[in-house]
Amino acid sequence: MDMDRIVSRLRAFTSERDWDQFHSPKNLAIALSVEASELLEHFQWLTEKQSSELPPEKRDQVRDEMADVLLYLVRLADKLDLDLVDAAAKKIAKNALKYPAGRVRGSMKKYSDY
Amino acid sequence: MDMDRIVSRLRAFTSERDWDQFHSPKNLAIALSVEASELLEHFQWLTEKQSSELPPEKRDQVRDEMADVLLYLVRLADKLDLDLVDAAAKKIAKNALKYPAGRVRGSMKKYSDY
Amino acid sequence: MDMDRIVSRLRAFTSERDWDQFHSPKNLAIALSVEASELLEHFQWLTEKQSSELPPEKRDQVRDEMADVLLYLVRLADKLDLDLVDAAAKKIAKNALKYPAGRVRGSMKKYSDY
Amino acid sequence: MDMDRIVSRLRAFTSERDWDQFHSPKNLAIALSVEASELLEHFQWLTEKQSSELPPEKRDQVRDEMADVLLYLVRLADKLDLDLVDAAAKKIAKNALKYPAGRVRGSMKKYSDY
Repeated sequence: MDMDRIVSRLRAFTSERDWDQFHSPKNLAIALSVEASELLEHFQWLTEKQSSELPPEKRDQVRDEMADVLLYLVRLADKLDLDLVDAAAKKIAKNALKYPAGRVRGSMKKYSDY
Repeated sequence: MDMDRIVSRLRAFTSERDWDQFHSPKNLAIALSVEASELLEHFQWLTEKQSSELPPEKRDQVRDEMADVLLYLVRLADKLDLDLVDAAAKKIAKNALKYPAGRVRGSMKKYSDY
Repeated sequence: MDMDRIVSRLRAFTSERDWDQFHSPKNLAIALSVEASELLEHFQWLTEKQSSELPPEKRDQVRDEMADVLLYLVRLADKLDLDLVDAAAKKIAKNALKYPAGRVRGSMKKYSDY
Repeated sequence: MDMDRIVSRLRAFTSERDWDQFHSPKNLAIALSVEASELLEHFQWLTEKQSSELPPEKRDQVRDEMADVLLYLVRLADKLDLDLVDAAAKKIAKNALKYPAGRVRGSMKKYSDY
């Protein structure tokens, strides 16, 4: 399955439930942010090292939360008539100019200072 | 461009800057949540109606924030060795069982009550 | 009860559970952000008008989430040795200079533009 | 200054700018969540240890973000006619029952499992 299929399946899912009335971009942005926090919640009391060694059951829960984030992101892009993957590709190019490898290597401090 | 290209470009971007050391799943989940809030910030004082009628400049800013959310999501999936699009497809199927169209039609109240 | 009592009760609560080891400022900031999202979740599918007319049971849940936000905020202030109420008073004064009443009256657009 | 003074100063600040029209509980919950993320952003690439040793300038920025979180929390409590400090005191008592010291000592894993 590719992203286009996700877009059309989500349209059908929403339409069958008559939920489009709730899907203003504002509400979708809220929902996306709430899901991103539910994802973060799984990591909140772990050390960074522990977060790299999730037990299988926890990893499955994390995968489901990540899926929810993507679904709201896809839905919002659809409502705003944006191509998400194209936007991401362009943003990588933009970030590459903003953070020249030679200057920021090995430091996130510089990242924040830019 | 497709999602696989985004994954490999992000790997190169991170590697060139020696930033992998900062990309623990915990830190990536924080960064994703922070970006999701920056996206939400664009909508916070708008009415739902206004959020559906963004002026072009604002829409471009929103697109860039959405791209950032996707980039961190892709990066986190790569670190956890997950297939994001496959996870999203499976989650739609799961949600379809959880929220049967016949029972939740037209109501998000039922959605929360489930 | 006043804020100082909250500070000392939280210290005792944390100490009795030997949880201070988890309370790095970074982890507390994550926890605070997660609680703020749990609060937001209660409002996510409501209209603005509905959010002003919460049924009693919902209002109680909202109150508990707000309490959790305050508790993590107080705990973080304690770890950073900050006086929260004093910081808030000073921030109001700072905001009053940043957003002169005569210039921003009735508009949040100006607010974002500043 | 105490919390009651913060409440009344915020009322005056809002009224002078005619901003009450934007302060639906839903919008205030969004703003609170956005501010909590701006706070978190300061910590996102720090280790837990670094987050305990903030340089003075960074600590001042963190204090201002924490103040913003408190201000929106106070404002929301005012709109919902809630006593925030009383809610926090009651929530500590509730949490003490939920997480008995004898059972959860030294573990946040148990915390999440409850």
